[in-house]
Amino acid sequence: MKFYNFKGERVFTPGPVEIPDRIREVLGRQIIHHRTKEFTDAFLETRELFKKILNNSSDNFVFFASSGTGSMEASVQNFFSPGDKVVAVVGGKFGERWAELGKKWGLEVIELRVEWGKSVDPERVEEIVKKENIKGVLVQMSESSTGAYHDVKALGEITKERDTLLVVDAITALGVYNFNPDEWGIDVVVGGSQKAFMLPPGLSMLWFSEKAKERLNDRAYYFSVKSELKKQVEGQTAFTPAISLILGLRESLKILNEVGMENVEKKYERMARGTREALKELGCKIFPENPVISLTAVLPPQGIDADRLRKVMLEMGVRVAGGQGKLKGKIFRISHMGMDLLDMVHVLSAVELALKELGSKVELGKGVGTYLEVISS
Amino acid sequence: MKFYNFKGERVFTPGPVEIPDRIREVLGRQIIHHRTKEFTDAFLETRELFKKILNNSSDNFVFFASSGTGSMEASVQNFFSPGDKVVAVVGGKFGERWAELGKKWGLEVIELRVEWGKSVDPERVEEIVKKENIKGVLVQMSESSTGAYHDVKALGEITKERDTLLVVDAITALGVYNFNPDEWGIDVVVGGSQKAFMLPPGLSMLWFSEKAKERLNDRAYYFSVKSELKKQVEGQTAFTPAISLILGLRESLKILNEVGMENVEKKYERMARGTREALKELGCKIFPENPVISLTAVLPPQGIDADRLRKVMLEMGVRVAGGQGKLKGKIFRISHMGMDLLDMVHVLSAVELALKELGSKVELGKGVGTYLEVISS
Repeated sequence: MKFYNFKGERVFTPGPVEIPDRIREVLGRQIIHHRTKEFTDAFLETRELFKKILNNSSDNFVFFASSGTGSMEASVQNFFSPGDKVVAVVGGKFGERWAELGKKWGLEVIELRVEWGKSVDPERVEEIVKKENIKGVLVQMSESSTGAYHDVKALGEITKERDTLLVVDAITALGVYNFNPDEWGIDVVVGGSQKAFMLPPGLSMLWFSEKAKERLNDRAYYFSVKSELKKQVEGQTAFTPAISLILGLRESLKILNEVGMENVEKKYERMARGTREALKELGCKIFPENPVISLTAVLPPQGIDADRLRKVMLEMGVRVAGGQGKLKGKIFRISHMGMDLLDMVHVLSAVELALKELGSKVELGKGVGTYLEVISS
Repeated sequence: MKFYNFKGERVFTPGPVEIPDRIREVLGRQIIHHRTKEFTDAFLETRELFKKILNNSSDNFVFFASSGTGSMEASVQNFFSPGDKVVAVVGGKFGERWAELGKKWGLEVIELRVEWGKSVDPERVEEIVKKENIKGVLVQMSESSTGAYHDVKALGEITKERDTLLVVDAITALGVYNFNPDEWGIDVVVGGSQKAFMLPPGLSMLWFSEKAKERLNDRAYYFSVKSELKKQVEGQTAFTPAISLILGLRESLKILNEVGMENVEKKYERMARGTREALKELGCKIFPENPVISLTAVLPPQGIDADRLRKVMLEMGVRVAGGQGKLKGKIFRISHMGMDLLDMVHVLSAVELALKELGSKVELGKGVGTYLEVISS
């Protein structure tokens, strides 16, 4: 079946995600210079709007002109010293990244291995921090390679009263969940622009608690939190900022705040639940045990290769992501980030058609119907 | 049910239609001056690409900086003289426009009234042209107010051998059907940018046969075909052209020619057929007897007000058109123009949810399933 599309591909990958028109218009504007009052005003407004996303009024955060990994590296560099003992929860590709970064910067990394697709048992973390002098716990709130949710609130209860920083990669969680690091006991939060902020990649966010602030060192240069913080609270930056992305972020934060993070979370929860019920109806399995609401990682029905399925969907103009690392070819991943509720019927219809084309017994419309049923009830 | 959309409204009206990114990028570029070689080259290329859409190699066509009605008026002004007797097929709002224009410019208009939603019986036209000296037959190929198709090929058989021009408003037909005015015996073809050419409004197209060319007079000023033609075959215009829209049209014609008009027509035919089967499954009726493939005009199920339904859909971020003139509140209209096959599941899902919300007994997913069944079989 030929689709003869006029429009470009639709992008349902968990980053980058589709950019709403309101933001595209801002990104398309002529550049402004960053050493100007115009930029400073825009930057300070952006910072105020960002605080609301975190239900927080603290000025303890910086933006870097980097992808999310930059702020992950900054977390390890700025808040830890060589020899510091940390626990890295490794249950997917991004957990592995925490472990790699820790070692790179001389930390003594205890890798807490979790089967891919499973969530970490907080008791295992508690056991370690009780026994040893652990300076930090590095974890993903949303492990996007497996779609698993790690219960950072439970981990926060464990680290809160100790000299242990809870460092959370929230790259695919910030802007999705109604985040509250103070209440949850999180010390460092890492975010990235191309996920729920619906921007191109190239801007990362690093928020930290007062407890983390006391640990700030001078190891980093480009990723120095100290030098950036000093400038950024005044509306400037130590190094050239990603100007257009900052202006785009302001628009993105306006959208998120207009909807309200409580409603944003509700919307994603409904979208994720509907998508999963729909996929199960089509004979798929949801890969993670305790899934996040930012994306859905899916095992296709028995006998259907995930990458073959993705290829057929791509021929329809619908791009979803594949598995990473050891999950390559086994799963496919659909983003909810940046999507509106009705967008999911587009990707679900493509899944239905592709499954049928690959010989799966599919009653067309069954998945979409289930989805519409869930979101409207 | 709240949708909390991040993205803007989706536009499923039969004009304007959504603009593909490839075209938006061109439209967003800095203006170029029109009295330059750059514009002339682009304009001549656009003209060559336009010929292919009509399966024709003639240079007998002009573009006007106007909406479609401009080229309708130009047809009446340039090819007819006061006192000329013409037949106007009046079976909807746009048929009425032909009659109004004819009278405005002094023609003796015989209004051939057709019940709204019905298509004209060619025999009725034949009867008149046999009896009287009819200079022209003015008709819509696609009467977008009712969604009805008038059989211009059958009319062409009638006018071909006579001193009668067949003037076709193809505003919602050109770029949809694999048009062939020579073969079909059409003398004047009117098109508009904001329909199947997927551009903003503001550019109209006027093609004419050799037989029509012999009739060209000097009545018009802004809409003078003679003076525009003389310039346009050389890559220039008599008056300032809609520069950005011309450049956008070049991109649009590239897209249509890449797909090929034969495939474009097949795609729309499949989309229209699927949409209709889906809507019938949901208890709706298709309004016109012999519908076009560019749009679908729909009667909602008994007891559901069309405008109320549209309002509920609009709250979901989905815009469809209402009825015009005497059909206001009675029907709603969905465009296929500019759409890709999977786009229809978005609007059909919205129809399903809206019908359910308004108390209609709807098995969610049933319409979408029917649609996917039709397009994939």
